[in-house]
Amino acid sequence: MKKLKIASIPGDGIGKEVVPAAIDVLKAVSEIHGGLSFEFMDFPYSCEYYLEHGSMMPEDGLKRLKDFDSIFLGAVGNAKLVPDHISLWGLLIKLRREFEQQINIRPAKLLNGVRSPLVNPKDFDLIVVRENSEGEYSEVGGRIFREEDEIAIQNNIFSRKGTERAMHYAFDLAAKRNKHVTSATKSNGIVHSMPFWDEVFKDVAKNYPEIETDSQHIDALSAFFVTHPDKFDVIVASNLFGDILTDLGAAIMGSIGIAPAGNINCNGKYPSMFEPVHGSAPDIYGKGIANPIGQIWTAKMMLDHHGENEIGNVLLDVVECTTADGIMTPDIGGKHSTEEVTEEIIKRLKE
Amino acid sequence: MKKLKIASIPGDGIGKEVVPAAIDVLKAVSEIHGGLSFEFMDFPYSCEYYLEHGSMMPEDGLKRLKDFDSIFLGAVGNAKLVPDHISLWGLLIKLRREFEQQINIRPAKLLNGVRSPLVNPKDFDLIVVRENSEGEYSEVGGRIFREEDEIAIQNNIFSRKGTERAMHYAFDLAAKRNKHVTSATKSNGIVHSMPFWDEVFKDVAKNYPEIETDSQHIDALSAFFVTHPDKFDVIVASNLFGDILTDLGAAIMGSIGIAPAGNINCNGKYPSMFEPVHGSAPDIYGKGIANPIGQIWTAKMMLDHHGENEIGNVLLDVVECTTADGIMTPDIGGKHSTEEVTEEIIKRLKE
Ligand SMILES: CC(C)[C@H](C(=O)O)[C@@H](O)C(=O)O
Ligand SMILES: CC(C)[C@H](C(=O)O)[C@@H](O)C(=O)O
Repeated sequence: MKKLKIASIPGDGIGKEVVPAAIDVLKAVSEIHGGLSFEFMDFPYSCEYYLEHGSMMPEDGLKRLKDFDSIFLGAVGNAKLVPDHISLWGLLIKLRREFEQQINIRPAKLLNGVRSPLVNPKDFDLIVVRENSEGEYSEVGGRIFREEDEIAIQNNIFSRKGTERAMHYAFDLAAKRNKHVTSATKSNGIVHSMPFWDEVFKDVAKNYPEIETDSQHIDALSAFFVTHPDKFDVIVASNLFGDILTDLGAAIMGSIGIAPAGNINCNGKYPSMFEPVHGSAPDIYGKGIANPIGQIWTAKMMLDHHGENEIGNVLLDVVECTTADGIMTPDIGGKHSTEEVTEEIIKRLKE
Repeated sequence: MKKLKIASIPGDGIGKEVVPAAIDVLKAVSEIHGGLSFEFMDFPYSCEYYLEHGSMMPEDGLKRLKDFDSIFLGAVGNAKLVPDHISLWGLLIKLRREFEQQINIRPAKLLNGVRSPLVNPKDFDLIVVRENSEGEYSEVGGRIFREEDEIAIQNNIFSRKGTERAMHYAFDLAAKRNKHVTSATKSNGIVHSMPFWDEVFKDVAKNYPEIETDSQHIDALSAFFVTHPDKFDVIVASNLFGDILTDLGAAIMGSIGIAPAGNINCNGKYPSMFEPVHGSAPDIYGKGIANPIGQIWTAKMMLDHHGENEIGNVLLDVVECTTADGIMTPDIGGKHSTEEVTEEIIKRLKE
């Protein structure tokens, strides 16, 4: 009997609705699987936690989380309570960095029964490999001068190691898929980091003669996501560009509420963390209408990560039957609640 | 008789097809207008010029261009001939900076007869005000260490002056439109420049109590462009975010080939420069299928800029009748050539 110890962090807003829902689904998975069980432990780290304790997690938070097999996270952030850069750097980004989750993988494809906002979405099925530990997200920078002369400086820091790692990951993934990697760049406008990115991409590509490549500026690439989403296989992108492309990918999937993601620790030293693309959506929190599919699909990615692809695929199939039958939340045109969708998925899983 | 002296720079690729087309249209405009004439002077600055002369323009290039009423530019860049960061920083970005064209205005709305890739584009009609002189596009940065330890550092530099200028421009524009400004931010991930951006936005907004505001992270905002394009009026964005949003805006308009833009010099010291959103598209250059509408609509923006809104509106109406009748290039589903579309527009203008 395989037992996975999972730290669950619902976080803020709808995270507190969809994480419990997805955990119920995982419990049903373990019931039908037989050989797999979970031990969940809940951590209340969030903006509310911050208001009470003055920090997003306790001082020994990392130590408490370190020995779990994976972390299952909902969403972090509620700007009405805590400024975003404080809540995010105190929890989400901190976990990504401290646990060396250097790669963020985010698939985008159309689910049965879910309508894309695109007239002709064709059969897009792409994965964005996002560099998750450096780049445009950096604490290096500051301000100088006062009043009308004030200047803010932000450093973007790209290491060869980090860049290569993301690119190798992308090429290895493409080798198992349609053998194409697209690099997201902006070397025409951003003249230090992006020409460096392009150089590393060319170097890494040499190791994969069987993989086709192309390089697109992020502006044009964003437009292509809308006009030709079927033209992509694997896309490798910096932290910021990956962030933008995956929200766009989620939009063309029909809703940001269904897109899954995994923050992968590649060196085996720390747990990976599974967290959907969507945010905490405080505006719809409490209404019971949050789409649980992003979090449930994210649970499938966690299953895959632990070698349980078979049951992971069953889970995604069940999700797709459910959407195909129109049992969905309002964001994708349905009339059902978070709970109803979750219950239906559990019922069908058990059948 | 008002005479406008226009420096035309077709640049690279399809710029060499659409600039002459749009100039023919402007000549027709002056014929029907009576009180307005143009004097065009052509400048061959481009990647080919670089190959011959070792620079994108001559040393006294700026001096030669400085006294024109406006610059009318096609597109710059052909990575097969010259690395993008060299061609762009040697010409397009150089002109934007040296001529203090600190604001880039880019409207996006649906033209009659042109189909959006969105199922339900509704009546979107938005303008992106892009900061055009600083931010993520900066020459400050470099590299350190060798081989596997190499690191590239890119500085983003945001001044209060530049940020305020873009924001004031956006609020003033919104005051004449639907009284809403959306700020594109990413202060949850990018912790120096973007919280600064948010602060300046809040400060500037105080001067415009009659304008509603909201602030969206660039990832979510990109997704909203696809899912709710009608929810925007004026959007103010940094150099990079404005770049991305306007290609996205062009995509939802139906083609990047139709989106217009103006690089505005606000202090009256130098000419403004009118340049469509699309690039040089070397892959379709020479086939006679480039869409001239982006460049022609850009010409309308140039007319507006010189106080000729009335004839500018007539021109855009004529463009829309033409597209409504299905006379369009292949990128927007038509069967006509650059020349046929241009001739039709000229014919209808003269009617
Ligand atoms: C060519 C490139 C440098 C330019 C930019 O990023 O500004 C272009 O994409 C644009 O939007 O005008
Ligand atoms: C909340 C924010 C910091 C985060 C990011 O930008 O990485 C989110 O948008 C995401 O994509 O996971």
